[in-house]
Amino acid sequence: MLRRHDYFAGQVGAPLTIRRAAVRDLTKPRSVTLPEGVLTDRVEDVLNDPEIDIVVEVMGGEEPAGTFVETAIRNGKHVVTANKELIAKRGSELLSAAHQRGLDIMFEASVGGGIPLIAPLRRDLLANDIQSIVAIINGTSNYILTRMAQDGADYQEALSEAQMLGYAESDPTNDVEGYDAAYKLAIMATLGFRTSVTPEQIYRAGISGLDSKDFVYAEELGYVIKLIASARRIDHGIVARVTPAFVPNTAPLAKVDGVYNAVQIEGDLTGTVMFQGAGAGADPTTSAVIADLLDLAHSVAVGSAERKYWQPAESIPLVDLNDHEDRYYLRLLVRDAPGVLASIAHALGEHEVSIAAVAQRETDLTERTAELVIMTHPTVRRAYEAALKTIHELDVVFEIRQSLPVEE
Amino acid sequence: MLRRHDYFAGQVGAPLTIRRAAVRDLTKPRSVTLPEGVLTDRVEDVLNDPEIDIVVEVMGGEEPAGTFVETAIRNGKHVVTANKELIAKRGSELLSAAHQRGLDIMFEASVGGGIPLIAPLRRDLLANDIQSIVAIINGTSNYILTRMAQDGADYQEALSEAQMLGYAESDPTNDVEGYDAAYKLAIMATLGFRTSVTPEQIYRAGISGLDSKDFVYAEELGYVIKLIASARRIDHGIVARVTPAFVPNTAPLAKVDGVYNAVQIEGDLTGTVMFQGAGAGADPTTSAVIADLLDLAHSVAVGSAERKYWQPAESIPLVDLNDHEDRYYLRLLVRDAPGVLASIAHALGEHEVSIAAVAQRETDLTERTAELVIMTHPTVRRAYEAALKTIHELDVVFEIRQSLPVEE
Repeated sequence: MLRRHDYFAGQVGAPLTIRRAAVRDLTKPRSVTLPEGVLTDRVEDVLNDPEIDIVVEVMGGEEPAGTFVETAIRNGKHVVTANKELIAKRGSELLSAAHQRGLDIMFEASVGGGIPLIAPLRRDLLANDIQSIVAIINGTSNYILTRMAQDGADYQEALSEAQMLGYAESDPTNDVEGYDAAYKLAIMATLGFRTSVTPEQIYRAGISGLDSKDFVYAEELGYVIKLIASARRIDHGIVARVTPAFVPNTAPLAKVDGVYNAVQIEGDLTGTVMFQGAGAGADPTTSAVIADLLDLAHSVAVGSAERKYWQPAESIPLVDLNDHEDRYYLRLLVRDAPGVLASIAHALGEHEVSIAAVAQRETDLTERTAELVIMTHPTVRRAYEAALKTIHELDVVFEIRQSLPVEE
Repeated sequence: MLRRHDYFAGQVGAPLTIRRAAVRDLTKPRSVTLPEGVLTDRVEDVLNDPEIDIVVEVMGGEEPAGTFVETAIRNGKHVVTANKELIAKRGSELLSAAHQRGLDIMFEASVGGGIPLIAPLRRDLLANDIQSIVAIINGTSNYILTRMAQDGADYQEALSEAQMLGYAESDPTNDVEGYDAAYKLAIMATLGFRTSVTPEQIYRAGISGLDSKDFVYAEELGYVIKLIASARRIDHGIVARVTPAFVPNTAPLAKVDGVYNAVQIEGDLTGTVMFQGAGAGADPTTSAVIADLLDLAHSVAVGSAERKYWQPAESIPLVDLNDHEDRYYLRLLVRDAPGVLASIAHALGEHEVSIAAVAQRETDLTERTAELVIMTHPTVRRAYEAALKTIHELDVVFEIRQSLPVEE
């Protein structure tokens, strides 16, 4: 920003000036030197300064960031934010408040770091009816899953390594339990389907229950395991979920490894377009924040008010996942005895769940136990869950060790 | 456009009306019915109508499209165009003429069909110093190369099939000799490096000289052959070329098959961001044209004039490819006799070209000939070409059958 100041000013058609920057701790050493009087520890100095046209919010979290953004809007300022939680939870309300005052809120940095995603959804793909958004959108969990797949690491081991490398926080819940991915999916689905999708409406499962064995079986069966955030437009609504899933190893998303993110957006005109890159980090986030800032600054410079590329077009219901059809991977600990497979197959069949493939593994002769791995044909979740319940009650089944859907 | 008229009007904040549409032949049957009086076969009816704010040009070719666009600009109209040849050859001049009148020319559809590329380069990645653009950007040639690689088809066979499927024109020169890719690369490099890069400045080689044997050797060596359009910012300028090249089979671009396009853009902040999708076709092009149209219409509706996200920042020289370092794949027909490899290695060594791998193949005992496949270490093109000349003069070398650079 400071380094490329003159270049940016040329692009925007007006100089950009950093007027105030509010920080928690004025005494903390910083890598950039700002002119005297710019740094402040009072957020009011930013929000109430009539000379400020655009406020950049990069503090994160729903509060107090939400109140600050509301105040900025009320005081007639455009906002650039990297805050996925805030936009996911209260984006529609905030955008609407901004709209009423002819202001704009830009949030490219909230999803996918430096990968352009918000602008494509708001502008470039606007002519399309979006049919699906399928994404690997949390770098932390993708790093952990990649380590588990490629090196046979177990979950704790991979998590510790991710923490050591700074990819995971000391409390990793937000990333590994899918909250972060659900925020991002809510934002993308809201824009893509032109309706309101909130994080609470999205089914969410995390990766902490995965076992290194699942990765071995996945590979044998021709799959990888990824934390997939997906939202699909079907006849009667939207199916939206974040879940670890089996992904065929020939699928483009199967090849997205490490901290990388990838988002596939399917439009009726474009077909599937895929965006891929580093989904987090200070530099990518900076790229996205400055792009928004220059865009808004240009609007301010040419005297045009709001650039509204998006408004909700309709209210589309979220579909109950129980009505949704998937194929499933199922891993059971069973008694190693004749007729066990038959009784499990029978229990599944009772609920119309049909078996596509089955393999018996890891027979323990002393304990007389074995692991049974089953891939099902497409089945409605409600029926599948009922079948699991029936199976669980069988004498010969000791434990349902894993159950994951397949994301095609 | 017609079908989603109300929705688009809501997004733009004003109704969009198709006022006139100029076509060559009024009697030709059309899939859409336009209101009476809209269709005309006189382009002046469009260019001189004072009620028209935005002109869409989708006729293609440098002329007369160029004159039409100039006239539209002179008459105060914004322009949306899908014309890669025109923008590649005269984009800077046309954009500058538009800029002087506070108008804009939008050309998202000129590169990559429905994949957002122009908007990301003009807007979303603006904070970055772009370091490289590496792309598979011609679907026709990628289809042919995919068929040659996967089914062992020879060039003519794959081309005929592409023609039959409508992927290649009856005169395929524009696609298979790299002109189309060079146009698109010129546009992307001009935007990405904020300078002027014209198609004539780009080194260009086509795919028609490839042999099915090259694909066999490539696979054995761990590569695929792709028509790569690349532009790289190096110390003293830009290296830009379109050439069939060996691409390591682990590289993301190696997996882009059929008519798909993929563009990798490396920014100093974002790292490498990849955009992938269908690069051509009526629907994807429509998606891009309408996105531009809605963007401009919104500008017109809110009363803001030009949205200029881009102007050339500096003049950067194109680097002579002869000074550029590459690894090479080389296939020779040689005499099958003792000492032949030694004399070739010696000739290469004289020019400081060092061999990384060598294999002798297809020995013909009757003719006493053999094919020699060589991979070199990185070498400056000038030295490599000199070495080829020396080799060619050797008695034991009958033919230099192929020579391709490696794109890492």
